Amino acid sequence: MATRIDSIGNLRGLYPAALGDAPVLLFGSHIDTVPNAGRFDGILGVALALALLRSLGGRRLPYAIEVIAFSEEEGVRFCLPFIGSRALAGTLGAAEFARTDAASITLAEALTSFGLDPAADCAPLPRTFAFLEVHIEQGPVLDREELSLGIVTAIAGQSRLSLTFRGQANHAGTTPMRFRADALMAAVQWITAVEALARETPGLVATIGTLAVSPGAVNIIPGEVTCSLDIRHAEDKTRKHAVRRLCARAESIVQYRSLHAPVTVEITETSTQQSVRMDSALTLALEAAAQRTAQPCRTMPSGAGHDAMIVAAVLPSAMLFLRTPNGLSHLPDEAVRPDDVTAALTLLSSFLEHLPPNQR
Amino acid sequence: MATRIDSIGNLRGLYPAALGDAPVLLFGSHIDTVPNAGRFDGILGVALALALLRSLGGRRLPYAIEVIAFSEEEGVRFCLPFIGSRALAGTLGAAEFARTDAASITLAEALTSFGLDPAADCAPLPRTFAFLEVHIEQGPVLDREELSLGIVTAIAGQSRLSLTFRGQANHAGTTPMRFRADALMAAVQWITAVEALARETPGLVATIGTLAVSPGAVNIIPGEVTCSLDIRHAEDKTRKHAVRRLCARAESIVQYRSLHAPVTVEITETSTQQSVRMDSALTLALEAAAQRTAQPCRTMPSGAGHDAMIVAAVLPSAMLFLRTPNGLSHLPDEAVRPDDVTAALTLLSSFLEHLPPNQR
Repeated sequence: MATRIDSIGNLRGLYPAALGDAPVLLFGSHIDTVPNAGRFDGILGVALALALLRSLGGRRLPYAIEVIAFSEEEGVRFCLPFIGSRALAGTLGAAEFARTDAASITLAEALTSFGLDPAADCAPLPRTFAFLEVHIEQGPVLDREELSLGIVTAIAGQSRLSLTFRGQANHAGTTPMRFRADALMAAVQWITAVEALARETPGLVATIGTLAVSPGAVNIIPGEVTCSLDIRHAEDKTRKHAVRRLCARAESIVQYRSLHAPVTVEITETSTQQSVRMDSALTLALEAAAQRTAQPCRTMPSGAGHDAMIVAAVLPSAMLFLRTPNGLSHLPDEAVRPDDVTAALTLLSSFLEHLPPNQR
Repeated sequence: MATRIDSIGNLRGLYPAALGDAPVLLFGSHIDTVPNAGRFDGILGVALALALLRSLGGRRLPYAIEVIAFSEEEGVRFCLPFIGSRALAGTLGAAEFARTDAASITLAEALTSFGLDPAADCAPLPRTFAFLEVHIEQGPVLDREELSLGIVTAIAGQSRLSLTFRGQANHAGTTPMRFRADALMAAVQWITAVEALARETPGLVATIGTLAVSPGAVNIIPGEVTCSLDIRHAEDKTRKHAVRRLCARAESIVQYRSLHAPVTVEITETSTQQSVRMDSALTLALEAAAQRTAQPCRTMPSGAGHDAMIVAAVLPSAMLFLRTPNGLSHLPDEAVRPDDVTAALTLLSSFLEHLPPNQR
């Protein structure tokens, strides 16, 4: 393989085709991770690509394979995820290069001091026809269903909201229940509705990950509560409908509660990310390979973001998940089962051998 | 009046009786308050006692009146409330005198450097037969019911609990609802039950004033939630029954939720304070005075603690509340209505004149 580090710091190695000027399959994942991480998030996808090429024993395919190890997928240093794949997709602009780390060093400066040229191009090679990413699931679905592998149909879209419920802080002893404008009780009623809707909507996940109570004393009725909502679904329509329903529910809760003492809610949509469908022809080719090789496998959406979501904007992309024991990830306990790695290699070998010409 | 500062720093003035060796009525409240406070919490009760004595125009009653301005009721400096009244009641021990302020000065040192002798006695005068305290309600009940005055029947008992719900922190995107062990959702379900029980139990107030979510990131399912419960009622039996029911409810919630993923709850009772009944003969005498003088008045429990609660352990005690506009207290906006002060003076004048001999 001819290897190089591209202008954003992605490590890339080209395994040539049988003939020159052949199409190129881009194949890889990221090699950075989070603090206190496990050993498989990202890096497994790169190691698997290399293992697959090794299994060819030097035999050339009708297309070249470029293995890529994306840099900075997690976004720990600059609080900006997918730096390597964004650069490849050409969506990294001046604002991103000006992002600073904790020591006020910009992304551009960090690249330059590493000997790279931030202005240089790091697009896919000419004639690259697809991107394939293998990754651990980082969730419990395959493990619970005792399946080795998952073929990703879409990366779920995501909305993040911030809600502030405001009532009136007051004395916990002298204020009868009927005269209270308790911001926490309003928030709690809404959170109950969030869980109920998520449970009754197949595929929807909704999380209240942060909640702050003010003034926050044992003997003071909360006057203000701010909480977050993270809500995801593979279908944007379903997610947007849920967001609308939950916003309406928050409004109706404070309206109902204001009959005796005024409570209000302020809702801000802090971020939104559309769902990204994986390429259906590639996904079908992965499914066909799973059937040919009889691997225990299902199709599923991904609730987390991955480089494939970014690359999908410029290349037909596909993803294969490996079971994550107990769904534990971003922890030292993160694991993969050797049998599942074998299953992935078996499935992918067949996928590479049978990749039909019309998908190259 | 003969005035003195007693050994704990209470300011006391004796208005003698018509004859020597007469019984003594103790009458007052506290003169300290909280940071950023209002102008009436505590001090109004002392000023009203002095105003009543002035209204006598020098005329002596069949009993003496000792006006007392308690020190350190709020407990701001040493995080220990009721220091003045505890000393009077004889319930201040070595542990309390060793309490330190933010500058590591002990209560004993502070008293000594002020020229006081912490070891000296500051009990009620011999033949003291009762304690009377006038205070602002610090709650909305009288204001909502458009009444000037409230005669306190009891100081509510109080339990404080700390609850920690533990589940499993996990990825907000990759963990389907059915596999979650969300500590916040368990806590929220319980808080809903707290509000429901308090609303359906007359006189019960229950407050979740603090709630902390861990790890506390928008995209991580909460693994641990710790919250407080402050619950009060004038009847200890009702309060204890409610505490038992809510603890059982927390246990049943986590048990039910553990069907799919284990959630636990750890409950600690951090403090408990029995309710304190005001002396019924004195309370009846206040009610009789209200009827004679036709003051708009009701009987009510106090949800907040007061010096009278401490003094009640050694003297028959009674309390009179004045309406607090909008229920706002411990704020610069804290107010009293001049008409209500007049009503209190009118009621109390009649109370003092008619205090039957068997209550002295």
